[in-house]
Amino acid sequence: MQQVQFYQDEFTSYLKGFTTHREPVSLYNPINYILQLGGKRLRPVLTLMAAEIFNTNYQKALDAALSIEVFHNFSLVHDDIMDDAPLRRGKETVHEKWSINTGILSGDAMLIMAYQLFENYEPNTFQALAKLFSKTALEVCEGQQYDVDFETRNDVSVSEYLKMIEYKTAVLVGAAMKMGAIVANASEEDQNNIYEFGRNLGIAFQLQDDYLDAFGNPETFGKQVGGDIIENKKTYLYIKALEFSNEDNKAKLSELFSKTLEDNEQKIETVKTIFNESGSANATKTAIEAYTNKAFHVLDFMSISENKKMLLKAFGENLMNRSV
Amino acid sequence: MQQVQFYQDEFTSYLKGFTTHREPVSLYNPINYILQLGGKRLRPVLTLMAAEIFNTNYQKALDAALSIEVFHNFSLVHDDIMDDAPLRRGKETVHEKWSINTGILSGDAMLIMAYQLFENYEPNTFQALAKLFSKTALEVCEGQQYDVDFETRNDVSVSEYLKMIEYKTAVLVGAAMKMGAIVANASEEDQNNIYEFGRNLGIAFQLQDDYLDAFGNPETFGKQVGGDIIENKKTYLYIKALEFSNEDNKAKLSELFSKTLEDNEQKIETVKTIFNESGSANATKTAIEAYTNKAFHVLDFMSISENKKMLLKAFGENLMNRSV
Repeated sequence: MQQVQFYQDEFTSYLKGFTTHREPVSLYNPINYILQLGGKRLRPVLTLMAAEIFNTNYQKALDAALSIEVFHNFSLVHDDIMDDAPLRRGKETVHEKWSINTGILSGDAMLIMAYQLFENYEPNTFQALAKLFSKTALEVCEGQQYDVDFETRNDVSVSEYLKMIEYKTAVLVGAAMKMGAIVANASEEDQNNIYEFGRNLGIAFQLQDDYLDAFGNPETFGKQVGGDIIENKKTYLYIKALEFSNEDNKAKLSELFSKTLEDNEQKIETVKTIFNESGSANATKTAIEAYTNKAFHVLDFMSISENKKMLLKAFGENLMNRSV
Repeated sequence: MQQVQFYQDEFTSYLKGFTTHREPVSLYNPINYILQLGGKRLRPVLTLMAAEIFNTNYQKALDAALSIEVFHNFSLVHDDIMDDAPLRRGKETVHEKWSINTGILSGDAMLIMAYQLFENYEPNTFQALAKLFSKTALEVCEGQQYDVDFETRNDVSVSEYLKMIEYKTAVLVGAAMKMGAIVANASEEDQNNIYEFGRNLGIAFQLQDDYLDAFGNPETFGKQVGGDIIENKKTYLYIKALEFSNEDNKAKLSELFSKTLEDNEQKIETVKTIFNESGSANATKTAIEAYTNKAFHVLDFMSISENKKMLLKAFGENLMNRSV
């Protein structure tokens, strides 16, 4: 096992070698562009780590890791079209820089290329990877569709919300780790356990994202604090606040989340006060902790050394402290 | 071997059983809608026929055939967004009936579902099918991108045009047949030969489509005759007419193909006259015949009975006479 930084560097250099010089350039240039935009490469690093956890050199997992990253970027390209987003990691989105049609078609090509990256594995591994990939990719589509559907609904339950973030975000984290285990020929039980570790950590991570969006430190969070409130996003904080509030605050919250304002300072302050006073902020912190512990609890059942369990736990703790 | 009608009926009934009742319905209803819109189901029928040509019951090839049809419809959904098309088979397109976002996301899900349809095959067959599928799907994306690129170019050569229609249309016909051969465990040589038969027939078919768009019988062609001329599409007829014409007609043709008119009757007549007098119409007929013969010539090298070769040839002839 190596440090996270090592896997990040190795992956980044492998990704550079993947740059496509195929024709037509109008199809492949946008793919090279989005893949080189940067990011923490969290998911592929998890694939490489998982392979080494199960006693296999990370190099054997590089193609699976790359597939996960290509898929993740495919979903960003198509989501950015659907969200009409102008910027991604501070740079122009693909459909802004080129066109919506280019975004659709280059995205489609990336989804196919993600499958092609399994082709160097032998048939049994290939089938296991491709099956997990298809199941996960379809869930990501379903999660995105739930997210779209929820925008126009006012009765989203906590369990529906949790399912949405699980599908949209967490299953890909679980799948990234399970792919490392598949490449390493780990037992089915270990494959499922590492998937559960990743899935629960993924849910915790997304809930924390909701929390930090409202209560994070503006200097370290990286995104605009209060962004979800400005955009009337019905996050875990919002759904729990509705559940816990008296009729007055409930009405006030619904009212505030039906408006688009010029100046949002007052709105953000009022909403944050309700999140705090209703107990929603605390409930969110409790849920984050619960899912993190659920992830760590899975480690108890894995047939790996205590030392490796400590490494996975340390990785999870770093992630939840956002120092990764 | 059975009649084409038999395979069409069997496939249609298998497709009905594929109707998805999964959640979210907002993702899956558009998929059920487009798959039930009809069509000749030409590609999946070819998969079933190819399996039986190589002595395997067509039922074993139903999932592969369905994958081809789901992929074909995925490409229609995304292409219709790119082309801003309001109608498909006389009914509203998915993005018109729902929204562009629904079209993108439901299309993505279909591409993934097409891969899932290989999962019931054993690992070696699965890998062979998925590899061929990925290669073909990527070529279809490239063909679509060439088609988009050619719209704004005035110097498209005949060989570039042929590559575009090969990728956009013909490789999927070849792949549909090769998948039947893969499922039937045919020899690699036979697999490649049936692919070449389908690919060449696919090119002939697309060139014939170009020809009939200008010179077809309005009562049997099914689409508006002259549609390509109205839309200034640079088809084989147009490229060859430019190549064969004197400077006057060249200028006239370029001029006519740079305008969008209210009344197209005169334009269609003038262009058709140039197509005829330049020799372009005849050159197109010659090319159709050449690719059809190329397809038939491949049959000579296949290790199947003369009777089956006759059946494939009859199918090809029926197709080129558009009685299928």
